[in-house]
Parts: sequence; C-alpha cells; structure tokens
Amino acid sequence: MFKYIISIDLGGTNTRIALIDYALRIKDKISFSTKDFFSKRNRLISEIVVRIFTLLEKNHIRKRQILGVGIGVPGPVDFLRGKVYYLPNIPHWQNTAIRDILEEKLHFKVFVDNDVNLMTLAEFKLGAAKNTRNAVCLTLGTGVGGGLILEGELFRGASFCAGEIGHIPLSISGPKCNCGGRGCLERYVGNRYILSEARKKLKMENINLVKLSELSENGNRVALKIYNDFAEKIGIALTGVVNLINPEIIVIGGGLSFAGDFIFKKVKETIDKRAMPIQAKLVRVKKAILGKDAGLIGAALLVKDNLSYRRNKKLRR
Amino acid sequence: MFKYIISIDLGGTNTRIALIDYALRIKDKISFSTKDFFSKRNRLISEIVVRIFTLLEKNHIRKRQILGVGIGVPGPVDFLRGKVYYLPNIPHWQNTAIRDILEEKLHFKVFVDNDVNLMTLAEFKLGAAKNTRNAVCLTLGTGVGGGLILEGELFRGASFCAGEIGHIPLSISGPKCNCGGRGCLERYVGNRYILSEARKKLKMENINLVKLSELSENGNRVALKIYNDFAEKIGIALTGVVNLINPEIIVIGGGLSFAGDFIFKKVKETIDKRAMPIQAKLVRVKKAILGKDAGLIGAALLVKDNLSYRRNKKLRR
Repeated sequence: MFKYIISIDLGGTNTRIALIDYALRIKDKISFSTKDFFSKRNRLISEIVVRIFTLLEKNHIRKRQILGVGIGVPGPVDFLRGKVYYLPNIPHWQNTAIRDILEEKLHFKVFVDNDVNLMTLAEFKLGAAKNTRNAVCLTLGTGVGGGLILEGELFRGASFCAGEIGHIPLSISGPKCNCGGRGCLERYVGNRYILSEARKKLKMENINLVKLSELSENGNRVALKIYNDFAEKIGIALTGVVNLINPEIIVIGGGLSFAGDFIFKKVKETIDKRAMPIQAKLVRVKKAILGKDAGLIGAALLVKDNLSYRRNKKLRR
Repeated sequence: MFKYIISIDLGGTNTRIALIDYALRIKDKISFSTKDFFSKRNRLISEIVVRIFTLLEKNHIRKRQILGVGIGVPGPVDFLRGKVYYLPNIPHWQNTAIRDILEEKLHFKVFVDNDVNLMTLAEFKLGAAKNTRNAVCLTLGTGVGGGLILEGELFRGASFCAGEIGHIPLSISGPKCNCGGRGCLERYVGNRYILSEARKKLKMENINLVKLSELSENGNRVALKIYNDFAEKIGIALTGVVNLINPEIIVIGGGLSFAGDFIFKKVKETIDKRAMPIQAKLVRVKKAILGKDAGLIGAALLVKDNLSYRRNKKLRR
C-alpha cells in the first residue's frame, strides 16, 4: 500500500524536498532558496507544505501512498518531542515543534532529526559505512558536524545532541568559537577559517574554495600547506574520538573533503601516529559516497526504520 | 544453588581477590603485592589460583556454589576472546588468554574486562550513576582512565578499547605521552605530572599527593593554583566528551578526586563555560561513591550480567 516517503532537507542556503520510493531511490526532487524566508519562519513552513502537495500532484501520488515525512534540520533537535532546539544559521527557529506543526498541516506521520545524523544514517545503511557496527561521520563545511553509529544504532545522547566532533577543543586557550567554546576543531577547519587563512597566506583577497583547490592541484606550496595543516587538525581531533569511541570506520564528507585524496591519507597518517595503537590499527578513514543526497536518503531511512519498528512492536504484543 | 562470585582486581601495585555474594556484598577479601611477580607472569596466575582456593576453603564454600569468576585488569582487553592485549604497568602480559588459562585451572566460567570498565559498571548499577542511561566515568591516578555507559549498556567499542578519556589530546603540539600521542589529558593531570609540577612550583623535592592536598586545604596559593589548573584541564577534555557523547552524568573517581569538592565545582564550571549550551546544561558532575571496591563489585556484576543473560537467552529458545 505505502510506496513513498517524503524527505525534506532544510538547509541554511536551500531547502530540498524529495519523493523517495521504498527502495530508497529518489523519484523526484525540488529545491528552493531558504534565504527568502529568513525572517518568516511560518512562511517557510507553509512553503514546504505547498511544495510537498505540488510534488505529489505532479507525480500523481495519492496521500495514502505516503508512509511518512522525514525532515533534517541544520541544528540540534529534541528527537523525542520532534522539536528544533535552535538553528545556528536560520533565525527564529528556537523551540519550534516542527513535527507537530507539519503533522497538523500534512496529516502524515513526521520525524525530525539533525541533518548530520541523517547523513550518518544514510552512509551507515547504504554508503561508506555499510556493514559496520561502530562508525563516526564527519562533515566539513561552514559548520563542522558529526554523527555516531554505535553498536549498529544511531547514537543521539541524553538530550539528542551527541556527535559534535566540530566542537572538540584542540587547544586550551584557542580562539573563541561561535558555540561558546574555545579552540574547537570547527574554529580551525570550518570553511570561513580556511578561507581567511588562505587570504592571508596567499595574499589573495578573492580566494574561494574552488580556487584554493585548483592551486593545490597545480602544486602551489602555500595551498598544499594549508590543506596539510587542515587535514592534520582533523586528524588530531579524530585521535581523541578514536581513543574514546574506538570506531572501525570514519567517514568524511562535505565540501572540503573533495579537495583531494591526500587529505584522507594525511588524516589517517595523523591518527596512526597519535592515537593508541589498537584503536589506530583498526580504524579506516573513508570518503562519504552518497554526496548531497545523503541527508534526503537518511530522512527516508528515519521514517522507514521508525514506522517499521513500531509496526513490528505492535505485532509482537 | 549458586551463591557466590569470585572477583579479581589485578592492579599494578596489589592484586585483590574477593568473595562476593549474589546481593553484591563482599563476604571476604585478600590482597597480595603484584610487584613480587613482575617478571613471572605464570607464577602470578598460579598465585591467583592458589589464593582463590584458599579463600574458598577458609569460608567453607564449595565449588558448585560459585557462579563464576570476574577479573579486571589495568589495560586493554579483547573482551570477546577473554584476552589481555597488554598491560602498560605490568610486564610480560602481551596477548595473554587469561580467560582460557583461568578456566582451565579453576573449572569456573571466567570473564575478563578492563578495570575502569568494571568500575564504570559498578558506579552505573549501584553507585553515583545509578538510574541514568548515558554516563561517563573518569578515574584519576597514575593513569587517567575512562568508561562509557551508552543507552544503558557498557560501551566497549569495535575492539573493546573505548573510553580512553585520558588520551584525548588537549593541544596540537603538546608533550609526548606514553601512549604514543601528544598533549593527552593524562600527560597534564596524571599523578606523576601533577607531582613534578608541584615539585617545581613549590620547590619541595619530597612532595607527595597527601602533602599537596594538605597544603591546598590550608590555603597555600601555589597548591590551590595547581589543583585549579588540574581541574580546568579535566574540564576542557570533558568539554569535548560532553559535546561528542552528550551524557547526563560524569562520575569522577580515583586518588586526586579526593583533593576536595572544589575540584568538582571547577570541572563543572569549565564545562558550563566551554561546552555547547544544551549538552552543558544537562550534565552533572559527581564524585564516585564505591571507592576502592568498585572494581571488585564491577567484576561480580560482569559475571552476573553475562551468565544471567545467557541463561535467559537459553530459556527463550
């Protein structure tokens, strides 16, 4: 009867909505700019609802063919209550009960989680961390996010905020971070800090990540050194994660992971050199393989896993 | 029928053996110096076996009244195979299949785990972390160890070495640590480093931890500053753990945790100041309450939990 899941990836730049079938293939997807709705949270939610109905109509899908809706958001979520705590890059979302709001408007079952958790879930079930039980995912971008798979389950922590690898301190008296901490990994390897470093060291005002990557590919020593330091810092933060969690795999995704394979090599080298021997020996470092759609697929998995689980639980009673 | 469990706490200084009843009360215990057997691993194992039989005889316990044997060791353990990987402070234990060796000699079921894991298990089931689901334990001493309770279970990681909070790096180019890493927490707050700091700053050659603690209790500013820096460094490493794991409680035990309650206050203050707001707000920092016997009680819990679980599994089939 059910055939499709609706996935929403609410991003700081774009919001993407996809119609995904039971085999987790994307049947159709649309995207619109989130920025147009920055000062109007309710209009953003209404836009999502309108777009969902348009997507269903266009694909001749009936409401009863939809299993449920999964939504990933770029910030911490109270998973149990389906509530966004806040979104660091989208204003006016503090304590938004997005699950209840969408359920009321859509009359579908809705599940909400942090976007990096959903990417982690997707890479674990279908991507680079398939067939593992203990995996760590890291996403590199403006923010540096993380997700944990422990003993074969997405691990969310006591208030569902676990996985913040970007906010592991790398120094005692490092620079202030947006999160309130000091010397966090993100403060050294987040896009804007890499670019500000590049601007200074290369003396190029209009540098961007594409140009920086081109320079390093062409053997520019300054650019290579920037990437090298960048990978080393990631490796040092992951050394702490490896010693603490003892995962079998680390999956790295997001913009800067595309700068070249030498980044993965340097990260693994740093872990091998610094982490405890048994933990270091076991762990592999791999590139994420699902790309930009990982979040959409993860949102579909979230719906599928939760609803099948509930059905099974009912059957067992 | 079963009434007792035998617990062994193999320590770098002393080895302790206890007879523990089903309600987890210690009925009797003995202790002997591990150092006498440093160059003779097999004689140490034989001594343990002899002492166990003596303990049983003395208490008029028959073999069939023993459910099993739990042993905690000060180093990483392959929990699945019952094998010690190595013991950093006791030589000649590389790849010792201690479970099989003891089972052959004793004809009891034997379980082996890392000593900090067992302390964590005890604090979780009966101690400071009772009635929680996500807890982090930290032990302060010569080594700085850690254990994790995640979703109500002891978390061991992919090769059973998780929990090494003492080896989270606090700086990128910090001093070399015994583990092979750089700038690890242990390298700043392990007993010997605290004492070497105290020796320098107080200009006292024969300082020890008791004297240092007395000085700070009497308001000696240098001693207070040493403890303050010590607690801050622990707080910074735990900031990373809190952001990554999102636990509801952190339990701190071991020698230096007895220096005074201001240490716990300073650790919590540091976390409040530096960790991400939702994670920081939730987490409590508490002193371990089971003291030196935590490891013995944890070893008994390990036996009880594993054997009851197996029995239940059998029943269900």
